[in-house]
Amino acid sequence: MKADYAFTYDVPLQRVVFASGALARVGDEADRLKISRALIVATPGSGERLGKKVCDFLGASAAALHAQAVIHVPKAVADGGLKAAHETKADGIIAVGGGSAIGLAKAIAFQTGLPILAVPTTYSGSEATPILGMTDGERKITVRDAKVVPRTVIYDPDLTLGLPAAISAASGMNGIAHCVEALWVDTRTPVTVGLATEAMRRFGQSLPAVVADGTNVSARADCLIAAWLAGTVLNSGTALQHKLAHVLGGLGLPHAEAHAIILPHVTRFDLEAAPEARTRLEEALVSTDPAGAIAGMLNRFPIPERLSEIGFDRSKIDFVAEEVAAGKITAPRPVSADDVRGLLSAAY
Amino acid sequence: MKADYAFTYDVPLQRVVFASGALARVGDEADRLKISRALIVATPGSGERLGKKVCDFLGASAAALHAQAVIHVPKAVADGGLKAAHETKADGIIAVGGGSAIGLAKAIAFQTGLPILAVPTTYSGSEATPILGMTDGERKITVRDAKVVPRTVIYDPDLTLGLPAAISAASGMNGIAHCVEALWVDTRTPVTVGLATEAMRRFGQSLPAVVADGTNVSARADCLIAAWLAGTVLNSGTALQHKLAHVLGGLGLPHAEAHAIILPHVTRFDLEAAPEARTRLEEALVSTDPAGAIAGMLNRFPIPERLSEIGFDRSKIDFVAEEVAAGKITAPRPVSADDVRGLLSAAY
Repeated sequence: MKADYAFTYDVPLQRVVFASGALARVGDEADRLKISRALIVATPGSGERLGKKVCDFLGASAAALHAQAVIHVPKAVADGGLKAAHETKADGIIAVGGGSAIGLAKAIAFQTGLPILAVPTTYSGSEATPILGMTDGERKITVRDAKVVPRTVIYDPDLTLGLPAAISAASGMNGIAHCVEALWVDTRTPVTVGLATEAMRRFGQSLPAVVADGTNVSARADCLIAAWLAGTVLNSGTALQHKLAHVLGGLGLPHAEAHAIILPHVTRFDLEAAPEARTRLEEALVSTDPAGAIAGMLNRFPIPERLSEIGFDRSKIDFVAEEVAAGKITAPRPVSADDVRGLLSAAY
Repeated sequence: MKADYAFTYDVPLQRVVFASGALARVGDEADRLKISRALIVATPGSGERLGKKVCDFLGASAAALHAQAVIHVPKAVADGGLKAAHETKADGIIAVGGGSAIGLAKAIAFQTGLPILAVPTTYSGSEATPILGMTDGERKITVRDAKVVPRTVIYDPDLTLGLPAAISAASGMNGIAHCVEALWVDTRTPVTVGLATEAMRRFGQSLPAVVADGTNVSARADCLIAAWLAGTVLNSGTALQHKLAHVLGGLGLPHAEAHAIILPHVTRFDLEAAPEARTRLEEALVSTDPAGAIAGMLNRFPIPERLSEIGFDRSKIDFVAEEVAAGKITAPRPVSADDVRGLLSAAY
């Protein structure tokens, strides 16, 4: 029997509220989680502005705005967030923004058990997973813990209308990476495969539309839905694509861009050994060459196409190859250090 | 924006264990639910034989086998089940069989709050829903209550290998009815639409294979997966197809067969007003005429194709039409009593 004919499926309890203008419900949803002293976590800049808006909606339930999230959650940043939660006697965290803000909220929840309410504004999908990534020096550490799963997610597509084309494109490719890999991991279930297919279809149709016109409301909503579904399927496990992005992230490369750049190469490499995934991608992307279709998206999007463009140090190829090979990935095919060297050279 | 761009999604917590031979895990899964005095509920006959096997696996945790389930859960049967639960001091219910056994377990759980562990052997999907249907005279009563959702479901495709072709076909068409309707109800979400599409694809490929050869293990597993997904999407709500099946069920017609017979007619009627559902069905069924494809399946399957063949009394057409019209269905299009008369005449 095929791999998805034997599985166990446990659903994490997560409530999702999706609507244009749903941000206005943040107070009600915080009440529902019995949060009366919220620490609002965001990145500096535009994230901070949105965080202030959330504070306004929350009124007396907002304990403090902590707009110090940074990509990949460096240990010092996590410690700073934890300190803020203690000092403000927070009884819940509201993460506003992309993967960086949600990552910091998770780092705090991991230590404190505080409930998270997430308001995502990019397509990282982090809000749908129990996965917490932190960096310490050049290595990225990943933890899985049910208590870091946001209890409630508010998706308001209006918040994404101003997301720049380059960030939309990179973040969307990150979401596509979740879907593609979900189709070939050993630990897939019919639910993850079904939702990954659904998300791919939506990204394939709507991500190019969003990159072309960021104010296309339907396409924005579609991409945010796809991002959510892509996040949920990440729970079924990951393989080469995410391992590679993980190691590159540890080296300080931007997460979404690294995902985007390696994705066509990994897809081409792995689809050779994953005929079912290939069929689904062909259908979802309406193309007989899914890896080529993904490469074409990357090529047309206003984002870097090569690792050399995002600061990858070529001398690190061996380090990355050895780290990835040490992961002993077997599905959908075994990956050697030489395979990784080949992929990195092609992507460089 | 499209209907699925504003929704709230709350996940019912249900554990699913799916594997060939998974029945042997029934004791472990009962322990997990802290069931130490299980009332095993089944239909008489083959259901009873399977129930005995479950008793053997459970050993001292089996309080009694109550093999008196009947289709549509007549009130007297529900009362009998409740009495058995009280007399045996059961602390949990294990439902073994199709929709009738699971329905009786739900009727007991509705009154007692006892947890249900379900071991489904058909494609009804009842195990995945909070919907409890009971009959009292000629009317069918439907209740929705989270406490009747089985906490754990064990799917063992081996248990379905002996399901006769006619029952497999009718039960599978019942599952397809869940999927089709999930694509056009107003209350759909991206998850229900995605999983309904996934289930349709699996039923479309594997149900004909199962009807042709009931021992095709992969096709059996695929249909059981599809049945599960089809059950979960039923939670997003129902419209004409299920309303009609519900009223016909109240008249004593067999549930799955009634669903199967009316499905091509309802599909043709509603797809006119549901272009997105049409596109998805075209893809999933690999056909430019999805209603025709479903009619073709019905025609090739060894089951009745007309209401006249399953004991429908033509003089009841007006009663059914008025009952359905009173439901004031609006999605994907309004349904008048005359519309229903037309559908019933065509299906008769």
